[in-house]
This record gives sequence, structure tokens and C-alpha cells, in this order.
Amino acid sequence: MPEISKKGIAMPASPIRRLTPFADLAKKNGKKIYHLNIGQPDIATPEIMLDAVKNIDFTVWAYTASEGTESYRNKLTEYYNALGYNITSDQIIVTNGGSEAISFAMQSCLDSGDEIIIPEPFYANYNGFACMADVVIKPILSTIENGFALPPISEFEKSITEKTKAIFICNPNNPTGYLYSRDELEILRDLCIKHDLYLFSDEAYREFCYDGREFVSPMHLDGIEEQVVVLDTVSKRYSACGARLGCLITKNQKVYQVALKFAQARLSPPLVAQIAGEAAVDTPTSYFQQVKDEYTQRRNLLADGLNGIPGVKCPIPGGAFYIVAQLPIDDADDFCQWMLEKFEYNNETVMLAPATGFYSTDGEGKNEVRLAYVLNQDDLKKALVCLEKGLEAYQNTH
Amino acid sequence: MPEISKKGIAMPASPIRRLTPFADLAKKNGKKIYHLNIGQPDIATPEIMLDAVKNIDFTVWAYTASEGTESYRNKLTEYYNALGYNITSDQIIVTNGGSEAISFAMQSCLDSGDEIIIPEPFYANYNGFACMADVVIKPILSTIENGFALPPISEFEKSITEKTKAIFICNPNNPTGYLYSRDELEILRDLCIKHDLYLFSDEAYREFCYDGREFVSPMHLDGIEEQVVVLDTVSKRYSACGARLGCLITKNQKVYQVALKFAQARLSPPLVAQIAGEAAVDTPTSYFQQVKDEYTQRRNLLADGLNGIPGVKCPIPGGAFYIVAQLPIDDADDFCQWMLEKFEYNNETVMLAPATGFYSTDGEGKNEVRLAYVLNQDDLKKALVCLEKGLEAYQNTH
Repeated sequence: MPEISKKGIAMPASPIRRLTPFADLAKKNGKKIYHLNIGQPDIATPEIMLDAVKNIDFTVWAYTASEGTESYRNKLTEYYNALGYNITSDQIIVTNGGSEAISFAMQSCLDSGDEIIIPEPFYANYNGFACMADVVIKPILSTIENGFALPPISEFEKSITEKTKAIFICNPNNPTGYLYSRDELEILRDLCIKHDLYLFSDEAYREFCYDGREFVSPMHLDGIEEQVVVLDTVSKRYSACGARLGCLITKNQKVYQVALKFAQARLSPPLVAQIAGEAAVDTPTSYFQQVKDEYTQRRNLLADGLNGIPGVKCPIPGGAFYIVAQLPIDDADDFCQWMLEKFEYNNETVMLAPATGFYSTDGEGKNEVRLAYVLNQDDLKKALVCLEKGLEAYQNTH
Repeated sequence: MPEISKKGIAMPASPIRRLTPFADLAKKNGKKIYHLNIGQPDIATPEIMLDAVKNIDFTVWAYTASEGTESYRNKLTEYYNALGYNITSDQIIVTNGGSEAISFAMQSCLDSGDEIIIPEPFYANYNGFACMADVVIKPILSTIENGFALPPISEFEKSITEKTKAIFICNPNNPTGYLYSRDELEILRDLCIKHDLYLFSDEAYREFCYDGREFVSPMHLDGIEEQVVVLDTVSKRYSACGARLGCLITKNQKVYQVALKFAQARLSPPLVAQIAGEAAVDTPTSYFQQVKDEYTQRRNLLADGLNGIPGVKCPIPGGAFYIVAQLPIDDADDFCQWMLEKFEYNNETVMLAPATGFYSTDGEGKNEVRLAYVLNQDDLKKALVCLEKGLEAYQNTH
């Protein structure tokens, strides 16, 4: 029998999915699970977007241009320029989800063995894309004590080698919810200029900044225009994860032309999603205000609730819809599995994502979990009670 | 300025797109172009499929399982088992187009530097996926004199090295339209068993076999179950290229589990396309009969027309909707560009794909072009006249 590839063996399994069989079994046994483990929002997709799907009027479901339709890219340009990105439509490549944008950026800018610096904890699937591109991720620790702020610049400097080609941030951050300040971004900008590095900016959660805080993108900064690659998606913005519609934005025409070759090899992004994505740009402001209000309330409820549980602490995130919390336990992987396998409170339990999957450094995050506040507030309250009871019981038996 | 990746530089540009600027200019100058250069069918997508899009009834456009929804995979299983594939739904991974299935197969089964044997001419984008996976394509020449039949087994044997991990066929073939016989597939099967190789089978054009000829897949053969990976798409079957919906099928659970890790990293295939794809399996047989009748007539018209032009010859393909023809010229790249730039007949011209882009061996296919019969018969007739006049004029001036 021929062997499978070493790359395939090395490819990290999604850490979130390790617990799926235990969740399936719990469900099968009639247990209700509060899913705080995944970033699938319960928020309704804007009607304007779903209506665009229902109103398609083509007869041949054809390929679009590999870089996306002209009309969608034009509309996206309006959207980004309203944010002050100052781009043109030929600086956008429409992708199959934000995932493909990440892949294209890595493949276009980094070669086998090249290094990319990412503050950890970070979105676990970056590991998978790095594996596919044969790129090495160098993590730099951000800590819960500092609310997961940007690590000191000296830590970056220490990690930079001849092979370093890029710094990669996710802002607002998944999994920490941390929102980088303009000052922090300027520090990164200066560092990238000094060391001639790309700055990849995953902005999937751009719309979700709270407490009136400003979202700043590297696209807003002067002097680094040619080094910035923005990776974006409509998944969270419009609660349209299943559309698989993202984009890569760069003002660097060399990077663009190379990424376009990768895009052309796979022919086309999805047509119906682009039609819907174009309509979605006209989503009324009131939609986002409502969603932000809802997420803000949930965040407050969850963060306050967590910090009220003995031994639990978490920072108050400035954006996205995730919280990383420290629990009074030694092994969150074991605890999360135990919550599914062994625990129930009124025949209910909570599913959490152990934070170890978001750290690249062995041993980090062992007493931390990521929680996504993608449930309504009533469910969040019940989940918090359930979690508190679970922690109590776990501590009594371990 | 940071450099772009060597891989990005090495990444082959799509050969079909080299001529696009010349076509754009011709159009701008008011010239009508008959597009025989691309595989975008003009055939209507089945109504049952488009209706499924129009009738979506979800409120949250959510992720699906990374391997595709259970109901779509169940329905696909019905479809494949009606063809005699004898598979279960957990042997299917739904992908973003056939393109992603090809990438997953290469990444799962081959490592950097490993070799894959492909009869040439072959679908040009295989080069791109091989570049991304850092896999080496070893071409074996199939010739127009033999109607692009499977090259002799001795040629395969000569090309097999320690690094060879797979043989890759496209059946019916793009670009040649050649339909492999059961005998040819059995030869390949024996070879793959003897040398412990994977057999990748791109079956995008499965529905389009003519003259009552039987379609045979490696899935129909005994003794090679664990080595076969089928790569499929709804793009051509339902004229739904823009759905970006394909799949990878394998009975080898090791390959499946590894491919699933790649699928999980990019989270999900598109939801609406899966809903539509599920509905499409119930497309009435009459639809395919009509489409096949239409393609058969077009093929006959185009092949007869081509063979009637002095100095032109082409085999009669058994499947797909492409023909590779030999022209009485030395440099098809130059000729195809000249047709767009310099030639017009009644203010019309024809766009063809030079065959060099489908050969991996330098110098092969220089007097060949690929034609896609994706235009109605009236247009095909006009395109043939235009091509004949163009060849005459080109020969007179070159």
C-alpha cells in the first residue's frame, strides 16, 4: 500500500475537534450542551444578503474572474475606502473564505523553511496553512496577565532571524479578543520596516470593537503600504460563515500578481456568494449597531460571570467575540473532556475549547480555555452556572 | 522591500490567460470573438439546482461540517453507487471545486520532491497544484497520431523512480477529449499495484461520453480499492462551474483522515452550493440526454469542420467537450495571438488555446490548439469559417 505523505502526518488536527466525539456521545445520551467552543455566531445573516441569494437570475452558474467579479470588487472597494484603506479594486483578490486568503499570502510571500512570527495564543488553523506552505511559525508569548497585549518589541527582535519574512497578527484577536491600539500597530510597522518584513493582518473581526474603541488596520499607517497584506472574510461580519467568501488585499503589485497566479490555478471564487457579498455591503448601520450591542452585553455578562467564579480570571476583551479565561485547574484539555464525559448539572453541560490548541509553545495555556459568546444571554447565564458547578465538582474529584 | 516567494515566481501563470489582454483589446476595438478557448459551457444549469438556491430557508448562513453536510454526502453516495462505485458517505470529502480536491490529494499522498506521472497533454492547472505542493510532474507523451490514447506501458515503466508516488489521469480527458477504455484502465491498475502507486482519477467530464461508449472509472476495478483517489466536481456535470463544489473520494481511510485534516483547516465547503448540489442529483435523465445529444452534434460539426480545412487534422474525441487539433503552422502561440491582434473576417475572429500550455515537455504541441465546443452550432459554423480564413491569411503572411 502506498504511504500517505509526511506532510499529511505532520498536519495538525484541528484542536477544537478532538473533543467532538465526546460531545457527540454526550448528546446521544440526552445531555444538553452549551457550545461556547466554536466561533459560529447565532446572529441572523442580514436579510439583504439572503435576499440576494433568493433573487439570483442567471441561467448558467458560471465561473467568475479568478480575482472575483469586477462589480463585487468595486463594491468592496467602496466598503474599504469608507474605512480609510485607500485602495483600488485591482488590489483585491476574492477568495474561498478567509482561509484561502491566508494560504495565498503564505504561499506568495514565504518559501519552504521561511519563518513567520505570530503572537500566541493564535487561531489554531494558522498551523495548518503553515504546514501546507511548509512555513515555520515562530510564536511570541502574549500573556493573560497583560490582557494579551502585544508582547514587548524586544521579544520580536529576539525571534527575528535571516529566515523571518513576516509578522502575522489577528486584530481584533481570535482567541483572546484583544484589540491592538494604534500605538501597538505603529510599533509593529516600525519593526517591519526596520527588518524588511511583511505584515499580515487577519481582520475577520473588524466590525466587532467595543466600548467605542477605534479599529486600526496596518492599512491606515503610512510608510508600510507595500508590506501589508490584509486577510479578510465576510464570515463574521455578516454572520455568513458558510458563504466561504473572503479576500486578500495588498497594495504591493508583485505580491498581488503572484497571489493572482494561485487564484487562477483554482479558477474562481463562488459566484452566488459574491452576488450576496456585494448586496451585503449595503447592510444598514443599524444591523451592526444591534449586533455590537448584543455582543457587548454578552461579553460583559460572560466576563463578569467568569471573574465571579472562584479562581477564574479573564481580561475584558476589546473586540471579536472570544474570551480566554484562566481556570483553577491544571489541565484544561482534561477538564473540557471531563465536562462532556463525566459531568452534568440538570442534565446540561458546557463545551469549551482548551487553550493549548491556540499556543504553539508546549506547556503554555494548560489552565486556560477559550469561550465564544455566540449564544443568547439566557443560555450564557445557564452556561456560567453550569461551568461553576462543573469546576467545583472537578476540583473536588481531582 | 521584502521579496516575494520563489515558489510564487515558479508558479506557472495560466497559459490560457496569456492571450486575455489581446482578446480584451480586440473586443475594445469592436471585434467579435468566438471563444473556443475556455471550458465554460453555455449549457443552462438544471432548474432543479437553481431553484434550490432560490428556495434557501435558513436565517444563519452557517459553516457546514468540513467534509460536507451529511445529507449532501448521503445524496452523493446514491449518485456514485448508481454508477457502481460501491462507496459509503464517509469516503467523500466535499471540496471548494474540483481544484481543492486535486490539491488535497497531492498534499495528502505526496511529499516535497515526490513524483507524479501524468500523460500529456494535461489540464494546465495541475502544474499549479503541483507547484503549491512542491510535487514534481513527470509527463508521458500521448500523441495526436494515436488519438491521444494511453501511452505504452513501457513509457510509464521508464518514468517510474523511487520518488514516484502516483499516476494521475483525467478521464474523459481535458484537453484531448480522449476516453480511456476498460483495457487501458486495467493496464494502469496493474501498473499501480506492481509499483505501489496511487491512481488519481479526475472525472470532471464523466457525464460526457459519446457514441454509446461506456465510462469506466478506477472505482470499477477490483484489487486497487485502497490506491484510488477520485477527484470530481459538479462544474461540468450540471454546468455549474461557479458553484465551486467538488469532492474527493477514497476508500483508503488513511488518505481520507489526512485529507480531512486539510479540509478542517479551511473549515467548510460552501453551504448554498451543497444545498444546490444535493438537489442536482435528482436532475432528470432527459437533461443529460439532451446535453449529450447537443455536445455530440457539436463535436461532429467541429471535428468534421476542422478535418475539412486544408492541413488541419484532429481525432474524434470520445468524451468531454474538447478537441486538440493540429494546424498547418509552426507556432500556435503566435498564431492564436495573431488571430486576436491582426486578423478579422467580417469583423469577427476566433480565440483558441495554444496546446503548448497543456504539455509539460518543452517544444511539444507547438502546432496544436485546444478547442472547446461550448458554443451553439451556428456560432461553431461561423467560427470554423473564420478559422479557415485566418489560417489561409496567416500562411500567406508567415
